[in-house]
Amino acid sequence: MDLYFSPLACSMASRIALYEANAPARFIEVDGKTGRTLDGENFLAVNPLGFVPVIRTDDGEVVTENAAILQYIADRFPDAALAPRGGMARTRLHQWLSFISTELHKGLFGPLFDPKMPEAAKAHLLEKGDSRLAHLNTYLTGREFLLDSFSVADAYLFTVLNWKIATPVDIKKWPAVEAYYTHLAERPSIARALSEEHALMRKK
Amino acid sequence: MDLYFSPLACSMASRIALYEANAPARFIEVDGKTGRTLDGENFLAVNPLGFVPVIRTDDGEVVTENAAILQYIADRFPDAALAPRGGMARTRLHQWLSFISTELHKGLFGPLFDPKMPEAAKAHLLEKGDSRLAHLNTYLTGREFLLDSFSVADAYLFTVLNWKIATPVDIKKWPAVEAYYTHLAERPSIARALSEEHALMRKK
Repeated sequence: MDLYFSPLACSMASRIALYEANAPARFIEVDGKTGRTLDGENFLAVNPLGFVPVIRTDDGEVVTENAAILQYIADRFPDAALAPRGGMARTRLHQWLSFISTELHKGLFGPLFDPKMPEAAKAHLLEKGDSRLAHLNTYLTGREFLLDSFSVADAYLFTVLNWKIATPVDIKKWPAVEAYYTHLAERPSIARALSEEHALMRKK
Repeated sequence: MDLYFSPLACSMASRIALYEANAPARFIEVDGKTGRTLDGENFLAVNPLGFVPVIRTDDGEVVTENAAILQYIADRFPDAALAPRGGMARTRLHQWLSFISTELHKGLFGPLFDPKMPEAAKAHLLEKGDSRLAHLNTYLTGREFLLDSFSVADAYLFTVLNWKIATPVDIKKWPAVEAYYTHLAERPSIARALSEEHALMRKK
């Protein structure tokens, strides 16, 4: 499998999932500014919208969208138990992947990273985001993971919460969210992904 | 099953899916302004974030998030064939549900409906949205549905595109998107949902 990624972008969730599954993968870094991979490949020919992550499966299928890719990895490597296989537990996985991608990623952190987004809009979204983080804080109180055990939803949520380092989102205001983040940061797959992607970021 | 909805909100996709499945359901209208159902029930006790859709399954499970609810309905009523059951076809469903919810719903139409979003931010998102709609137009050229046959992703995409009636998004610029919308509007489940929810909207 090939994973097109950019350091510390939401594609880090897929890297974490691949490490959890101990799955063989080729990691191909994309420079968001040039729209090319570090090897000079035109990434827009892979994904015309220019977003990471993208995977190319061993069958040559190109898949976009974090929620789809994470579930593909989980289902492709079932022994790693990164997603419930069906039933209400799978519905809860869908629910959390959707909440993270819509309310936190696209509704809060994404616009904060957008240099063309007016400051007044960012201030409004930061305020709006408080209710989402408060909701998450209530849910995570007394919990180690979003589901009963570690899943690709945790890989995604950790990756998104990690953007606190580059935005005004202060997760200290939500102690259960902060405890969840701190605890997950020590998980070997996550510690490794973080350290490797930070190193790549410094090289840029 | 109970479906909490507001007229013409993204919950209409779930109504369409329920009609497609000919599934028994109780439709409970939520007034977004008061946070109560029309019967006076406190909706925030059902979903603290106040969003529709929410379903309560026959087992009493409360499920939030459109992508999760739509897949729940599809899997609960498999005879209606509203979602592929697995494999790469299901991955493509995940991909489209994610694209619609992140790029179109939360990234474009949602902020256009937000009265507190500055006009400059709306103009920026409208411009950004063009690349997403152009991408969709290319994909839909020569296609009737997002997947090989009608699926819950079409119910969701139609519902989101229908917000053109209340926003400056002009889908006429994308002929394949417009043809897709016009064709789906004639589908019995969709025509019925549209007509009923328009009637409820007029009563408000």
